[in-house]
Amino acid sequence: MYAVIMAGGRGTRLWPSSRSQRPKQLLQLVGAKTLLQHAVDRILPLVPPARILVVTGKDLLEEVRRQLPDIPEENLLAEPDGRNTAPCIGWAAMHIEHTSGDQVMVVLPSDHFIQNEERFRRVIDAAARFAHSGQHLVTFAIPPLRPETGYGYIHLGPAEGGVSDEPVHPVRGFREKPDSQTAEMFVKQGEYYWNSGMFLWKTSTILGALRQHLPNVHAGVKAMHTSLLAGDRAQAEAAFLGLEAISIDYGVMEKASSVYAFRGDFGWSDVGSWASVYEINAKDADTNVVRGELLQIDTSGCLIDCPQRLVATIGLKDMIVVDAGDALLICPKDRAQEVRAIVERVKINRNRHPR
Amino acid sequence: MYAVIMAGGRGTRLWPSSRSQRPKQLLQLVGAKTLLQHAVDRILPLVPPARILVVTGKDLLEEVRRQLPDIPEENLLAEPDGRNTAPCIGWAAMHIEHTSGDQVMVVLPSDHFIQNEERFRRVIDAAARFAHSGQHLVTFAIPPLRPETGYGYIHLGPAEGGVSDEPVHPVRGFREKPDSQTAEMFVKQGEYYWNSGMFLWKTSTILGALRQHLPNVHAGVKAMHTSLLAGDRAQAEAAFLGLEAISIDYGVMEKASSVYAFRGDFGWSDVGSWASVYEINAKDADTNVVRGELLQIDTSGCLIDCPQRLVATIGLKDMIVVDAGDALLICPKDRAQEVRAIVERVKINRNRHPR
Repeated sequence: MYAVIMAGGRGTRLWPSSRSQRPKQLLQLVGAKTLLQHAVDRILPLVPPARILVVTGKDLLEEVRRQLPDIPEENLLAEPDGRNTAPCIGWAAMHIEHTSGDQVMVVLPSDHFIQNEERFRRVIDAAARFAHSGQHLVTFAIPPLRPETGYGYIHLGPAEGGVSDEPVHPVRGFREKPDSQTAEMFVKQGEYYWNSGMFLWKTSTILGALRQHLPNVHAGVKAMHTSLLAGDRAQAEAAFLGLEAISIDYGVMEKASSVYAFRGDFGWSDVGSWASVYEINAKDADTNVVRGELLQIDTSGCLIDCPQRLVATIGLKDMIVVDAGDALLICPKDRAQEVRAIVERVKINRNRHPR
Repeated sequence: MYAVIMAGGRGTRLWPSSRSQRPKQLLQLVGAKTLLQHAVDRILPLVPPARILVVTGKDLLEEVRRQLPDIPEENLLAEPDGRNTAPCIGWAAMHIEHTSGDQVMVVLPSDHFIQNEERFRRVIDAAARFAHSGQHLVTFAIPPLRPETGYGYIHLGPAEGGVSDEPVHPVRGFREKPDSQTAEMFVKQGEYYWNSGMFLWKTSTILGALRQHLPNVHAGVKAMHTSLLAGDRAQAEAAFLGLEAISIDYGVMEKASSVYAFRGDFGWSDVGSWASVYEINAKDADTNVVRGELLQIDTSGCLIDCPQRLVATIGLKDMIVVDAGDALLICPKDRAQEVRAIVERVKINRNRHPR
């Protein structure tokens, strides 16, 4: 099996630590490893480094290389610019097929966190055996913990016997981010799961599906790949930049037949806000999550991420304090979503007063 | 008239901005000037730079010189180590008397703030005329705003007609920092005022009082001054270091006769905590006091002193945020006194892990 780790994301919900040149997957948010390093280490017991591909942005390549010294250079695929997941996955699939013929490949985001890694690998392993047995597109469906309106949902049919102990569900449909009423209904109804953005299939299966549902993307990726093999990097880059930006969910999964899901009951988190960074980390005796040197009086339930200087707090409860060197964020944990509004204002200020 | 500005203090109540090498008087806490610069500028309409002496610590001299380019070099008196106010005042008085003969001198702390500067000068001016007329020791008594237990109190007798419109009160006694019950009684009783640590007298008066009440200090300061005139700095330093550390309040004022007070009703603050820094500064439209670049949502009643980096706050109310580069403080305004406890722990940590 091959693993393709998508590491080109640019989220800013973890501002001020995450920036376009220093996105979430490259940050140490849990322990001493970055989310990208966690993503690679998590799959290593199933996939050796020679079979792990990492797709990232050209400008992030150097940092990705630094963080993953064990991944062979030729396995780092650098996009000249982001074109969403369909082109990224198409390129990786072609790369694998060219190198090793038809192979099972698992596609994994680099900026999520998984609490129970052993369970994760057991599910991936079962899905790999299932995908190997036919022309199936497999996704992983997370049992919803709350009526979240920030995720897409997957509607599952009743479990069928798979090729292992893990039940496999036919996918009845994909649903875009719902409004809160619909999300409530989804969670109550029980057949709707969070879309984790993880996939598994044979390279022949996904390339066939791309050719069928996104023929332009398939042709563009093929042209790029051919140019790369011919050593014409400029031509390859132009071909990639000409691609439509489209997600694999919207472009392929929603239209394809033979789409299946395995239940992803392994403690998944998309690390979508500072509040979730607090949740996924181990707490100290005062229920704080601390990185850096903290002197505190009456401080509890806080995330203090200030690795560069001493922090002293008095009487702080359920707060987030993040110091990224050139910027500092202080906000209550339950208002962590409003960081987006701050980022918008930072952008406006920067455009007005460029430095 | 001469002015003697005492700038050798080492308080740490404004940690993390104030440190032993960067004490309160050298910080920009109100507007763009430091408290020391405010202290000098405040008296300038009454006293020209050539008649302003600044007494400070040897290790602070360079920064004091940088902040006060208009004060002549020979007017900066550098103590090799702090010996409280009596030796400091004795030295300044001898220096003045040697240079200019018997003169009226006003002694002013450098780390306080005064809201109404015009009123301040009117009171000082009246006191100077009063002191000039006899052998009086004059102090300034601040009408108490609350039953503060952190200050000493002055017990005043009924006003007598002075040499101006300003009433002058005989001082009945000085009282050490009271417990809270006594402080309540003081404020209710109406004859007790805060001791501001500001004094005014003729050099002959204070030197006579020192000779009478602190003969050792008088002799030691005289020895030091004589060595300085002879160009023997080492000898002068040794003489100063041999002096007893004692305050002018305790060593002279409490024992002397002919002690008078003028009412200091000019908006005095000792800038004794971050809460008082908030109080003495102008507020913005959201009732915040901000130094640096702040992006905020729902933030009010806060002091944000972060000149070195962008700060973003959400939902912060009545909080103090102070960033001193190598350390950051976050605490509610009404717990600003607990900064002392933090400083104690910083000291303990530093002794354990010296850097």
